[in-house]
Amino acid sequence: METKRTPPLLPLFLCAAALVAALAAHADAQSAPGWINAYRDTASRLIKAATADDFAWQRLAELTDTYGNRLSGSDNLTRAIAWAAETMKKDGLDNVHTEKVMVPKWTRGRESAEIVDPPRHSLTILGLGGSVGTPPGGLEAEVLVVESFNELRMHAADARGRIVLFNQAFTNYADTVSYRTGSARAAAQAGAVAVLVRSVGPVGLRTAHTGSVQYQSDLPQIPAAAISGEDANRIARLSARGRKVRVHLSLEGHSDGDAESANVVGEIRGRERPDEIVVLGGHLDSWDVGAGASDDGVGCIITWEALRLMKKLGLQPRRTVRLVLWTNEENGTRGAAAYAEKYASTATNHVFALEADSGVFEPARFGFSGSLAARNMIRDITSLLTPLNLAETISGGGGADIDPIAQAGRAPTMAYMGDPTRYFTIHHTAADTVERIAPDEVSKGAAAIAVVIYVIAEMPDRLPR
Amino acid sequence: METKRTPPLLPLFLCAAALVAALAAHADAQSAPGWINAYRDTASRLIKAATADDFAWQRLAELTDTYGNRLSGSDNLTRAIAWAAETMKKDGLDNVHTEKVMVPKWTRGRESAEIVDPPRHSLTILGLGGSVGTPPGGLEAEVLVVESFNELRMHAADARGRIVLFNQAFTNYADTVSYRTGSARAAAQAGAVAVLVRSVGPVGLRTAHTGSVQYQSDLPQIPAAAISGEDANRIARLSARGRKVRVHLSLEGHSDGDAESANVVGEIRGRERPDEIVVLGGHLDSWDVGAGASDDGVGCIITWEALRLMKKLGLQPRRTVRLVLWTNEENGTRGAAAYAEKYASTATNHVFALEADSGVFEPARFGFSGSLAARNMIRDITSLLTPLNLAETISGGGGADIDPIAQAGRAPTMAYMGDPTRYFTIHHTAADTVERIAPDEVSKGAAAIAVVIYVIAEMPDRLPR
Repeated sequence: METKRTPPLLPLFLCAAALVAALAAHADAQSAPGWINAYRDTASRLIKAATADDFAWQRLAELTDTYGNRLSGSDNLTRAIAWAAETMKKDGLDNVHTEKVMVPKWTRGRESAEIVDPPRHSLTILGLGGSVGTPPGGLEAEVLVVESFNELRMHAADARGRIVLFNQAFTNYADTVSYRTGSARAAAQAGAVAVLVRSVGPVGLRTAHTGSVQYQSDLPQIPAAAISGEDANRIARLSARGRKVRVHLSLEGHSDGDAESANVVGEIRGRERPDEIVVLGGHLDSWDVGAGASDDGVGCIITWEALRLMKKLGLQPRRTVRLVLWTNEENGTRGAAAYAEKYASTATNHVFALEADSGVFEPARFGFSGSLAARNMIRDITSLLTPLNLAETISGGGGADIDPIAQAGRAPTMAYMGDPTRYFTIHHTAADTVERIAPDEVSKGAAAIAVVIYVIAEMPDRLPR
Repeated sequence: METKRTPPLLPLFLCAAALVAALAAHADAQSAPGWINAYRDTASRLIKAATADDFAWQRLAELTDTYGNRLSGSDNLTRAIAWAAETMKKDGLDNVHTEKVMVPKWTRGRESAEIVDPPRHSLTILGLGGSVGTPPGGLEAEVLVVESFNELRMHAADARGRIVLFNQAFTNYADTVSYRTGSARAAAQAGAVAVLVRSVGPVGLRTAHTGSVQYQSDLPQIPAAAISGEDANRIARLSARGRKVRVHLSLEGHSDGDAESANVVGEIRGRERPDEIVVLGGHLDSWDVGAGASDDGVGCIITWEALRLMKKLGLQPRRTVRLVLWTNEENGTRGAAAYAEKYASTATNHVFALEADSGVFEPARFGFSGSLAARNMIRDITSLLTPLNLAETISGGGGADIDPIAQAGRAPTMAYMGDPTRYFTIHHTAADTVERIAPDEVSKGAAAIAVVIYVIAEMPDRLPR
């Protein structure tokens, strides 16, 4: 489905790498204590059921094809929430219901940008989520190009009345995203009339990446848009040649107060300790471009699959497994806050929380955050994932939706994470569609999560804090 | 500059491949007759001068950054023509002038498409060049999905009043482009109200590829647009699930008669046989998206470089070397027709014609069309390109701009062609920008063309027909 990137010999290397990893994992499995052997058969059955067909991918395609992108406050999200609850009931999950959450509603409207001098060239942009609009008819100004916050501070006097273009290099998401969130504040402080931010991602195919902008209450709110890497470089090259570049920018983005939305919840009630909760999920909302497939339709589907597969195999573990498809992760995390507030009194009953919100692109992996004692048990548990080449878990793993309840309950957290280079190529873009995701990538994520969740919900003692 | 596609070990393979090719070429060079040795030193000097710096890439960036895309009849093209003529004069070329050509003017206007049922999802489209517009406000109809002309014929009764979506597989450009050119005729014949054609290229990042559509005089002209592969597949999946898909399509494309344009000509007058012409060039016009960098700014620049480098090294070959930057290759080939008409009486004086109109992406190669005697001499000449790994020339090479004059004069023709997979990923898209082209890819093309053209213009006898 995906654009071909693999030279003919690469599969050989992947096989070799898989073999090495499998041998290492085999060593792990041999060194794992005997307690985990009790779960080996069930783990194999879950993995076999998850990887037998492309059910999970087909469900993801149904979600993203039918409901498309799902911005907070949109009709698409409301419809997708209703579909998810209805479908969970059909799957036979317990206690399926929605939990009302009020979410901010922001509407993009029409957008355009062009270089008017030298005449005249359209630019590929996406307004940043939460941005104010320009005046009707747009605004026009000369562009000041900078590559860092520091460079803007050095040339702050030149920014007044200008459109500031941040053309920062993309290194990785964590290091670069501060330009998307913070550039409007920095440019406003220097007196700029608007800000363009080089898209946070590798150069694609003239691809703009949206995402949230943050304003500061004591500074003017100026219009803010992401611009494709190619367009940012073009303006930078023209400027470097001494050519003044004038840009016309028109954004209609506006906030419309709050709208009603909901978290969707479904469970497998615990056989012996129903009050102890193993919570997992993804967020059902997305940005308003693409189809919200990798961010985060697939995270919803693979966590949901963990419950569906247990039901299918007749497994009812000791503790309650609770699936939550959160709302409004992208521009407010109101779903996460509402969940943590609603369940504050039972926060310490949450023994474990897992979120999938980084796609499933291979090579994927788990990350874990918790005590050494918990980490050691996770190492034993993930030894069951040797057939999936997922035995090794990296340090650090949580999620915007699970962190509030996990912090309140001091619960260990885990994340399932796809390859970041592939993920951030399409992150928050029109190209976040189901096309790019391979069915076996989805099945593998579902299988891995099902095994981990099952064991943690089933084992005699709760996972240590 | 380009999106990273190369795994770490690939360079090793490329090196190995280059070594094998170099050894093969060395064998060629040893078996080449002695006559070619007279050109070995000059060839080395041309290659050294071409590859010493990134002059050619910088000139391409100046063209595409400042003038952007250059559709026939646009102000951008008019400005680029004036810049090219002025810059050729600064380079010291002889007989620099423009030759007036009337070209069709088509204007895209605003475009939009969305799935209205299931509600509501924007589609990534590009109207096909030459398409008529929809009625004001657009049109709406249910979509009939087919994968081939044959499948449409089988379901022709279902096409009446519908929008036909051709979701043909992309194999290669030559095999697939007939869907872009011919789908509007086929759909109109079946009574469709509009046609969407899966973009002719590999799946990109929600990327639409424009290009010409052809109408038939005895059939209605219906609006025609290219649609991204992802959107075509989405509609196909929804239909396959039994969901009727309704699409709203709005195109403002319209033709505005003819506008004045020009071919740009510059020469190095022949030292001994000025009436014998070695013609080469690319087309300066482009589609109205992207920046016309690979199609065909870079073809203009690398052929132009052949003359600039000869001037720089003080080389004035025996025959005249004539650079032509043709106009209107994309939607009319009026520039090629005007050239062939203007020079009809001297067509047989054209001893050789070379066009660069397939980009310069590595691995690049030459193609040649001509007699066996000519091919044998070309093999000797390209043995000089061993340092560039271009000694091997494939069979078949011409160009839309050189074919009319070459056919009239029975001249052998040659093409410089970049890697087709990389080329057709960005062909006729917004992503056809200078970012994707590496400076050494441009320099290499310029070096290779300079050597071939110099030898053919200098050698005692004209290249055999």
